[in-house]
Amino acid sequence: MRISARNQIKGAVVDVKKGATTSHVRVDIGGGQVVTSSITNEAVDDLGIKAGDKVIVVIKASDVMIGVD
Amino acid sequence: MRISARNQIKGAVVDVKKGATTSHVRVDIGGGQVVTSSITNEAVDDLGIKAGDKVIVVIKASDVMIGVD
Amino acid sequence: MRISARNQIKGAVVDVKKGATTSHVRVDIGGGQVVTSSITNEAVDDLGIKAGDKVIVVIKASDVMIGVD
Amino acid sequence: MRISARNQIKGAVVDVKKGATTSHVRVDIGGGQVVTSSITNEAVDDLGIKAGDKVIVVIKASDVMIGVD
Amino acid sequence: MRISARNQIKGAVVDVKKGATTSHVRVDIGGGQVVTSSITNEAVDDLGIKAGDKVIVVIKASDVMIGVD
Amino acid sequence: MRISARNQIKGAVVDVKKGATTSHVRVDIGGGQVVTSSITNEAVDDLGIKAGDKVIVVIKASDVMIGVD
Repeated sequence: MRISARNQIKGAVVDVKKGATTSHVRVDIGGGQVVTSSITNEAVDDLGIKAGDKVIVVIKASDVMIGVD
Repeated sequence: MRISARNQIKGAVVDVKKGATTSHVRVDIGGGQVVTSSITNEAVDDLGIKAGDKVIVVIKASDVMIGVD
Repeated sequence: MRISARNQIKGAVVDVKKGATTSHVRVDIGGGQVVTSSITNEAVDDLGIKAGDKVIVVIKASDVMIGVD
Repeated sequence: MRISARNQIKGAVVDVKKGATTSHVRVDIGGGQVVTSSITNEAVDDLGIKAGDKVIVVIKASDVMIGVD
Repeated sequence: MRISARNQIKGAVVDVKKGATTSHVRVDIGGGQVVTSSITNEAVDDLGIKAGDKVIVVIKASDVMIGVD
Repeated sequence: MRISARNQIKGAVVDVKKGATTSHVRVDIGGGQVVTSSITNEAVDDLGIKAGDKVIVVIKASDVMIGVD
């Protein structure tokens, strides 16, 4: 499937922390940047996401803000 | 201000495309990656965002999905 | 690509209304239900979305609310 | 209350899984489709959501993506 | 309809600015605070939202961030 | 950092409820209004958020809906 979300960044899973219903997946996207994703435990199990996996971080453009120092 | 959003990635504005009410801001975050942000025209004007500016892309962890090829 | 978003519903595009930067895509998911999606014009062009196309409506679980009459 | 969210789909609660702070509510919207919603435990308690209840799945248009196979 | 979204704040519409597909609605919630909402033109028309109307600002808890100065 | 999010409302933390991975932070924004925020435990720890703290509630305009009674 190709998806409309404008932001699709390749990376590697650093770790997966499972909670009661919600997991946090951290993905190294290179350049010293780690992105944190909060998804359901079911999604983690369904896709079989685990440390070391090659994945794609997907973010809809309307969920991206801009900050200025 | 420091903010709870887990994902804060430094980059440089590539371009700003203004619509009637909504702007699209593209930010080069390095490594050949460009992130697209959809924000209000008011935000662009208020922060004075323009091509070349150093900015920070800010994304809440609950808005990040994971894809697997 | 397979994606972590829990909600992936097949449907057919009813129409695409393009604005200055943002498009509204309406998708018939069957059972008399039409879902409206607000995405960037770039996404519409990139995926070549047009009326009649078979598509998949994708929604992250954390973006779904529950109402009670 | 009537709400601006464009997507309001009737269904019946399949099950509610409560976590430490976050619940997952699965709703059968007909046609073999089940939608998963991630909401606070407080919302589940406040609305008294339980299996079998008739509910309405509510999704803002800007949270809907389009996928193409 | 009652809705699971935890944040429902009463206010009065200050103004509505319609774009090509997206409107910005500003709502005075009292205490000198004005909240900006970005919704579809269709939602504005469907609910008949106009300056002076009593409305309720609705925000899902997972869309609220915390900042610290 | 200044941020593009249009809604930034000052308040005081009422309480923080930590779950396994996700925390709920309730913030009194005055006028009898309490806003609930769902963020990661890591964000709570990183910013040191606790009851009584002066904070700023931050919400992107595209995440705000309008209800009408």
